[in-house]
Amino acid sequence: MGFVERDQPYVVPTVHARIGSQLYLHGAWANRMLTTLVGGAPACVTATLVDGLVLARSALPHSMNYRSVMVLGAAREVVGDEKPEALRAIVEHVAPGRWADVRQPTEAELVGTLVVALPVDEASAKVRVGPPLDDAADYALPAWAGELPLQLVAGDPVPDPRLAPGTGAPPYLWIQGQKVKR
Amino acid sequence: MGFVERDQPYVVPTVHARIGSQLYLHGAWANRMLTTLVGGAPACVTATLVDGLVLARSALPHSMNYRSVMVLGAAREVVGDEKPEALRAIVEHVAPGRWADVRQPTEAELVGTLVVALPVDEASAKVRVGPPLDDAADYALPAWAGELPLQLVAGDPVPDPRLAPGTGAPPYLWIQGQKVKR
Repeated sequence: MGFVERDQPYVVPTVHARIGSQLYLHGAWANRMLTTLVGGAPACVTATLVDGLVLARSALPHSMNYRSVMVLGAAREVVGDEKPEALRAIVEHVAPGRWADVRQPTEAELVGTLVVALPVDEASAKVRVGPPLDDAADYALPAWAGELPLQLVAGDPVPDPRLAPGTGAPPYLWIQGQKVKR
Repeated sequence: MGFVERDQPYVVPTVHARIGSQLYLHGAWANRMLTTLVGGAPACVTATLVDGLVLARSALPHSMNYRSVMVLGAAREVVGDEKPEALRAIVEHVAPGRWADVRQPTEAELVGTLVVALPVDEASAKVRVGPPLDDAADYALPAWAGELPLQLVAGDPVPDPRLAPGTGAPPYLWIQGQKVKR
C-alpha cells in the first residue's frame, strides 16, 4: 500500500481482501497509514506475483516474469454491517475456510479496529511472460538463456507451542494433498 | 518503488541491486518512474519477503510473518564508471555469476539506459516471526493455531525456444543440488 504524508511516499506491506469492486485493509487505530488514508489521501495498492527470473544473452534485457496489478484511488472508512464482512474476507483470504474455525470479532474489537476500503475504479495490470527479448545479433551467442520459474510454496504447518496436544492442522492448509499456497 | 506524481502515489515492482549504501534501479529513458525520480522527487523503496501465514484462534490477529525493509530518500542519476558497475550489480542480483556469461552493455546501450541510485541513509526494517498473539482467554479455544511457512522456490530452468540445442543451464541456477532461489 502506497500513500503520501507531507510529500513523502511510503510503501507498506499489508494483508488485504477484495469483495467485488472493493479492496479492504485493516489495522489498529494507531496505524498511521490507515488514519492517513481515511483522511481522503490518494492511495495506490500494488500486488505483484513474481513468476520467474528472465536470463537474457546480454546484460540489459535481464528481467523478471510477473503479474502485477495497481489500484489508484481514495480510501474510505468502513462502518456498519460492511465492517465484519470485510474482516471475514481478510481472514478468508489468509486461508479460505478459516472464518468458521475461529472466534469472531467482539463488538469492542470491531470498534477498536479500523477497516478501510479502496474502490477498484481505476486500476491497471502489467504482465510479463516468456523468454527474454534479445537483440537479433545476440541470438548467435553461446550463453544459456531462458527463464528460472519461481513459485511460492507452503511448508508443513508449524503448530503454536501453546496448542493443545493432538489438535490437527485443518484440511484447508492443504490442496489436493499438496501444501501449496493458492 | 514508491513515488509521487501530482499528489498521486504510485508503487511499481522493479528489479534492483545494492552496492554498499547505494540502491540501484534501471530502465529506459521513457520510464516515467525513473525520470520522475531523477528530478529529485522523494522516493520510498520497500522490499518484503513473506515467510508465512499466521493463523490465530480469533479472527483479528490473523497476520503474516515477514521481513520488510523501507528506504526513504531522493534518487540521483548514475553516470560515469558507476553506471556499468550498477548494471553489473543488477544482473548479478538476478543470478550471481551471471555477468561473466553475457554480452556486456555497449556504449550506445549505456547512453540509452537510465540508472538511478537511492542512498540508503534513512531506512527502517520490520520483522514478524513466530506464532500468533492471541488474547489470554482464547488459548482455551479448540481451534488449530500456528504458522503456515511460505518459501519462494525455483523450478527447473526453462530454455529459450531459440536456444542452440545442447546449451546447458549454468550451475549458478542451482545451489548445493537444490533449485532454490537465494
